[in-house]
Amino acid sequence: MEFDPNSLKYDSNGLVPVIAQEAATGEVLMMAWMNAQAVTRTLESGRVTYWSRSRQAFWIKGESSGHVQELVELRFDCDSDCLLALVRQTGPACHTNRRSCFYRAVRSGQVVEIMSPIVD
Amino acid sequence: MEFDPNSLKYDSNGLVPVIAQEAATGEVLMMAWMNAQAVTRTLESGRVTYWSRSRQAFWIKGESSGHVQELVELRFDCDSDCLLALVRQTGPACHTNRRSCFYRAVRSGQVVEIMSPIVD
Repeated sequence: MEFDPNSLKYDSNGLVPVIAQEAATGEVLMMAWMNAQAVTRTLESGRVTYWSRSRQAFWIKGESSGHVQELVELRFDCDSDCLLALVRQTGPACHTNRRSCFYRAVRSGQVVEIMSPIVD
Repeated sequence: MEFDPNSLKYDSNGLVPVIAQEAATGEVLMMAWMNAQAVTRTLESGRVTYWSRSRQAFWIKGESSGHVQELVELRFDCDSDCLLALVRQTGPACHTNRRSCFYRAVRSGQVVEIMSPIVD
């Protein structure tokens, strides 16, 4: 069956959450959002392209920072309302310069930083 | 610093997306939602507890199916608006009886099923 980006279930803002996972290691890097056109652009270009809710614009990941995400495979879930993008991440995925945005853990009720920024 | 579930950024429905990842393998299992009280219950009980948007009720994962998620670690992202739950999943995470909800991939423009239901 041919994949149709419009067959996904978007929220009231026309967006679907996307989990980016490093293909080589399985590390979960970040979560962001796509609209139908961002899904199409991502598949056509092979460069992961989100929709920035704050800027209300397409956001080609790494376009300014160089920390691009090359798409390895796009998957979607049973309800067709969440995407999983397997990627090859160049440099840090997080704007704090950490490899992953999920750098804080809750341990024994305390917030613990489990990842340091990458030093260039 | 002590972790305060109310310090997370919830959406207009009071919810935050949660990615469940198998701690042992790194496999992304599913994405669901929590409100602040679900976060508290998850941390206190060690049993991953979501908020069901369709049922508008707490949803202790696996309570009826037995396919529970034991919490290994709860992490949160740079914007404090997404959670990553590392879990030990018993049985399939997906209601289709597949290990992960992300069992469909887009390959060369076609939808491909990459995972079969678990046969009991």
